[in-house]
Amino acid sequence: VILDAIASALRPIGTLTGRHILVTSGPTHEPIDPVRYLANRSSGRQGHAIAASLSRLGARVTLVSGPVALEDPAGIATIHVETAREMRDAVRNALPADAAVFCAAVADWHAETALQKIKKNGAAPNLQLVENPDILREVSRLDEQRPRLVIGFAAETENLIENARRKRARKGCDWIVANLVGTASDVMGGMENEVTLVTENDIEPWPRAGKSAIAEHLAARIAEALA
Amino acid sequence: VILDAIASALRPIGTLTGRHILVTSGPTHEPIDPVRYLANRSSGRQGHAIAASLSRLGARVTLVSGPVALEDPAGIATIHVETAREMRDAVRNALPADAAVFCAAVADWHAETALQKIKKNGAAPNLQLVENPDILREVSRLDEQRPRLVIGFAAETENLIENARRKRARKGCDWIVANLVGTASDVMGGMENEVTLVTENDIEPWPRAGKSAIAEHLAARIAEALA
Repeated sequence: VILDAIASALRPIGTLTGRHILVTSGPTHEPIDPVRYLANRSSGRQGHAIAASLSRLGARVTLVSGPVALEDPAGIATIHVETAREMRDAVRNALPADAAVFCAAVADWHAETALQKIKKNGAAPNLQLVENPDILREVSRLDEQRPRLVIGFAAETENLIENARRKRARKGCDWIVANLVGTASDVMGGMENEVTLVTENDIEPWPRAGKSAIAEHLAARIAEALA
Repeated sequence: VILDAIASALRPIGTLTGRHILVTSGPTHEPIDPVRYLANRSSGRQGHAIAASLSRLGARVTLVSGPVALEDPAGIATIHVETAREMRDAVRNALPADAAVFCAAVADWHAETALQKIKKNGAAPNLQLVENPDILREVSRLDEQRPRLVIGFAAETENLIENARRKRARKGCDWIVANLVGTASDVMGGMENEVTLVTENDIEPWPRAGKSAIAEHLAARIAEALA
């Protein structure tokens, strides 16, 4: 405790030396049968960029990544998972952390998995979906192991701010980084992003920028909040 | 016709100079809503390797590829598509061809697409699936534009030969390249493959090999068949 206090006193504002930060990134893939799966359009670029920015500010970062076509960021402990259930387990194992940034686009549902490939025999099947664990909500509502700062992402196709505020309250997290996605937008899977930071008292629209610029800005804000 | 006859007489057996061959490769992605989709585990490695092998034997190759993390093969006209319906249109536009190799893992079904992101509000949704066009069957049953040699692929998790023979008859194609996939197998998405070639009169199990060796072997067999 004394050492912590000294370390804290010596830490310049805006750096994250000595902090452990958990970041999730990418999509999850939910198997339907041995060859088919449900997925989403997250490329992992935003989450991976945030992990790299936090690491550059001195944080020890644990990155839990769904299936992406990106290299593991240099010097960052990266844990690869496929499904939402695997991601939840990896997140829980990575705690405690000073902050957690839930940037992954976790599938809301998984399908009851068929052991053999579903054959095409006339009638198209009906896929009954089952709810996945809500990782953001679970971690936001932890007792002892709750990170001081829990940040969620909200990808919305309509009513951005209203949906993001509701999501923040429903999940119990501290901040929501909200962005508009959809067929008309090239954000999901693209190189740029346009986000609004929703905190307890503020709605801050940030200018459209490259995903690494957004990551630098968010990492700086996290460093301020933990200082 | 006379020039064709001369060209044909001058063509060494085992080369494909002057032939046009269509190859499909990779998975298809079928949107569920603006951010989610149905997919399958095809990496495109086998189809892309076949396109490259055919090109090395002198064929003009048109490659119709679903979303993959691979580079377009050098010197091959590559058409990128996302859904089964887009792949069908690209295939039809690429005809006529002397041979067609349908290596893509085309989704059997697509979902009725939602215009806005489906919200998570209590009950998990039921995805009603709708049958996709059957590209292999359609092309196999074309009248004038049917390629002389139509080759399909069958990824099966059980009863490999029996399912492949039935598929060959049902689709009306000439050959089926059958392989066993499943959670215990690393073929789909992996670097190696173990296939059985099912023709009208033969069942030929090929030894397990790298996907490029399988591609070389198949390209040589196609060259023989078209000679």
